[in-house]
Amino acid sequence: MKLISFLNQGTPSYGIVNGDDVLDLTPILGAQAPDLKTLIARDLLGAAADAAKTHPPTLKFSQLTLLPVIPNPNKIVCVGLNYGEHVRETGKQITESPALFLRMTESQAAHGQDIVRPPESSRLDYEGEIAVIIGKGGRRISEADSWSHIAGYSCYNDGSIRDWQVATSQWTPGKNFWRTGGFGPWMVTADEIAPNQKMTLVTRLNGQEMQRATTEMMIHSIPRQIAYISAFIPLEPGDVIVTGTPGGIGNKRTPPIFMKPGDVVEIEVDAIGVLRNGIRDEA
Amino acid sequence: MKLISFLNQGTPSYGIVNGDDVLDLTPILGAQAPDLKTLIARDLLGAAADAAKTHPPTLKFSQLTLLPVIPNPNKIVCVGLNYGEHVRETGKQITESPALFLRMTESQAAHGQDIVRPPESSRLDYEGEIAVIIGKGGRRISEADSWSHIAGYSCYNDGSIRDWQVATSQWTPGKNFWRTGGFGPWMVTADEIAPNQKMTLVTRLNGQEMQRATTEMMIHSIPRQIAYISAFIPLEPGDVIVTGTPGGIGNKRTPPIFMKPGDVVEIEVDAIGVLRNGIRDEA
Repeated sequence: MKLISFLNQGTPSYGIVNGDDVLDLTPILGAQAPDLKTLIARDLLGAAADAAKTHPPTLKFSQLTLLPVIPNPNKIVCVGLNYGEHVRETGKQITESPALFLRMTESQAAHGQDIVRPPESSRLDYEGEIAVIIGKGGRRISEADSWSHIAGYSCYNDGSIRDWQVATSQWTPGKNFWRTGGFGPWMVTADEIAPNQKMTLVTRLNGQEMQRATTEMMIHSIPRQIAYISAFIPLEPGDVIVTGTPGGIGNKRTPPIFMKPGDVVEIEVDAIGVLRNGIRDEA
Repeated sequence: MKLISFLNQGTPSYGIVNGDDVLDLTPILGAQAPDLKTLIARDLLGAAADAAKTHPPTLKFSQLTLLPVIPNPNKIVCVGLNYGEHVRETGKQITESPALFLRMTESQAAHGQDIVRPPESSRLDYEGEIAVIIGKGGRRISEADSWSHIAGYSCYNDGSIRDWQVATSQWTPGKNFWRTGGFGPWMVTADEIAPNQKMTLVTRLNGQEMQRATTEMMIHSIPRQIAYISAFIPLEPGDVIVTGTPGGIGNKRTPPIFMKPGDVVEIEVDAIGVLRNGIRDEA
């Protein structure tokens, strides 16, 4: 099942995508769950699947204005330096623990929405990643149990303003410019992606492949990430873990490549789909 | 005016403190603003002050179970390395831009609530700080305009698990253990603290002074922080900026001093009050 968040005549809604058909779940389940995060938290994914059996879709995906898959996560935890080639290209060292930073909700962009290059910098870079969306919350989740805490998966573009990222030791500013982080197009529920299933992640800029890796190449596996993060803070339904980017970022190419207005960036994960964003300058 | 968030027979509420008297604002303004963040966002601080003129207080501060001043901020942006002595004791360099990291809501503790030492580490350290609470939101706020965007001030203890903080280059895990960040006791509204008014910050552990500084010693002033953060992300009402800790942290003493069960840590800011937390081991 593929779930989206979107605007229906200006009202935040969520639904199920099947090809170009969309079933708006808000009229059916909205009283119990006003948003997708709450649908997950109240364990209503089964009810959503049941609704799709009895209600005909009424909307077209191609005509919708999407929102980030989870528009309002309580937290977005991002893993840095999690693929060997990316660690090498940045000149860093592999660490025993994952390097973690946080993104703010307002730094996100939906599938189909432009990623914004701010006037403060021209060094806007892509980072293709796989996002994990937490289903069942928990603290000190074991690696063995971790798969049962995942609601689903999505694509993520951890868009970065490189000069602001390295202005100090802490990457926060460069990772949190308004509307630089693509998140979508949908969440594929975890029942469709087996634990440890190999996924292939590809980033394309204007159709040209820039990054390629598989989940088998992660330094810190998804179970390890869930165990490590939940050791210090409870994970909650709808929380997002952005699992790291492979080698091939624009900033470390010779010459460097940065995204500019008119570009189109795509993050494709074979088991999920394609997240596509245009680039524009901030008005 | 001093505003608090608290539990009233288990229900989150907010009110005005005057000595030991508390006026519960929830029955008066709760329909317009379910929490203190919303009271600020809807510009109802004046209505709160008016309510205090006509409604008698009915609760006692000394008998309340407090919540973190803003229990549900959209973001908590923390400034690192913002006092010269602290930069020197950590062996770091002063940077032109402030070093920023984020705390998660669930990492916070209320005034009077124990800060929790997790079983994962014995290296629990204090960091006394001044918290700024945003009133009027905005993007690219100028330093000159910044004071008008502040709703008020509070005390903050940016409690840190030192070994987890330095496990990688990114401080996120050590700054986000569950219930390690003290925030309180109240917000003093900005009308009572003039722009650029010198404030003195003192940290005491079991009554002994551990840190002392004034706001004049900040490397990046409060206006500079607001301008820098709002350059990359919109600030919103209720957002919290934690403005940095002075020299004297426990981790850099010889021998190091860490907080342990039974300790009492106090953060006092002369213009605000005293934030007090006990320390306990996680059950």
